[in-house]
Amino acid sequence: MPRTAAMTAELQQHIREIPDFPKPGIIYRDIAPLLASPDALRAATEVMAAPFKDEKIDIVAAAEARGFIFAAPMAILLGAGFVPIRKPGKLPFETHSHAYDLEYGTDELHVHVDGVQAGQRVVLVDDLLATGGTMQACCRLIERCAAEIVGCSFLIHLADLGGEAKLEPYRVESAIVY
Amino acid sequence: MPRTAAMTAELQQHIREIPDFPKPGIIYRDIAPLLASPDALRAATEVMAAPFKDEKIDIVAAAEARGFIFAAPMAILLGAGFVPIRKPGKLPFETHSHAYDLEYGTDELHVHVDGVQAGQRVVLVDDLLATGGTMQACCRLIERCAAEIVGCSFLIHLADLGGEAKLEPYRVESAIVY
Repeated sequence: MPRTAAMTAELQQHIREIPDFPKPGIIYRDIAPLLASPDALRAATEVMAAPFKDEKIDIVAAAEARGFIFAAPMAILLGAGFVPIRKPGKLPFETHSHAYDLEYGTDELHVHVDGVQAGQRVVLVDDLLATGGTMQACCRLIERCAAEIVGCSFLIHLADLGGEAKLEPYRVESAIVY
Repeated sequence: MPRTAAMTAELQQHIREIPDFPKPGIIYRDIAPLLASPDALRAATEVMAAPFKDEKIDIVAAAEARGFIFAAPMAILLGAGFVPIRKPGKLPFETHSHAYDLEYGTDELHVHVDGVQAGQRVVLVDDLLATGGTMQACCRLIERCAAEIVGCSFLIHLADLGGEAKLEPYRVESAIVY
């Protein structure tokens, strides 16, 4: 199911706007109604996977927790495996780690050193592309595995926040753009 | 794809045992190799969904983060929606919450008050049933929504730890039992 204007509009109807979350002045795009709709959940997953269906993807990877929601069914749809990228202390085996700056403080993500094999073709997934910090950290981890990043797929892209530039040179696909 | 001895054995081959994680004396069952295998990921999802395929399931719900990995594709397979159960501060709308005891201290889970509608038929999902504390908290939250819990589905059940009794009277299904 390719991304079309009609499909984007249909998916967008299931996004709920919540003002002043997590802080005053921010409009939070709540994907809960989309997830709870069987048709919208399936359609969103298909739209997010479609750009990569002829790309012989080996692995779909995503950071916890919301990234997992779309990445796992996309992996099944693309005939790929799924690799979780996690916060410190969660993965039991040896990991690569990457620290990155947040608005206040820093955060750190990990991937198993044997999670992705050298040369595997990887799509990275998240629900939201805002400033791109989390996804940039995911890219650095997959690069450390010597794997090939074919692209990044998002449900929602907040285009004014500069996230796409931060992910260059990688291909960025999104189902809904604000 | 029903659960058979052959299928269980096949899935079990993809579980990696890591001794002394997260602390000495514990054998951690690492599902990462299963997730990274396209065939095992798809098969595990199908086995976990199979007991509920004729049960007219409306919603598959799961607690973050690993629960999301199987719950989302199971929802798509069952023609259901997905509802996330999350730690404090993550959900933007009004929530029901439930605090529960851990080995040390307490934890708390939340679900949107409108996440599951009264009377909807719900399957709860997680990767692991150990002592059952997390899943029991999930059951309390779904009960608060006045929805019907049709059952709980796990990839792995550690049968010596008493989790199944804690989930009575609900149906418990698992793909792999240790």
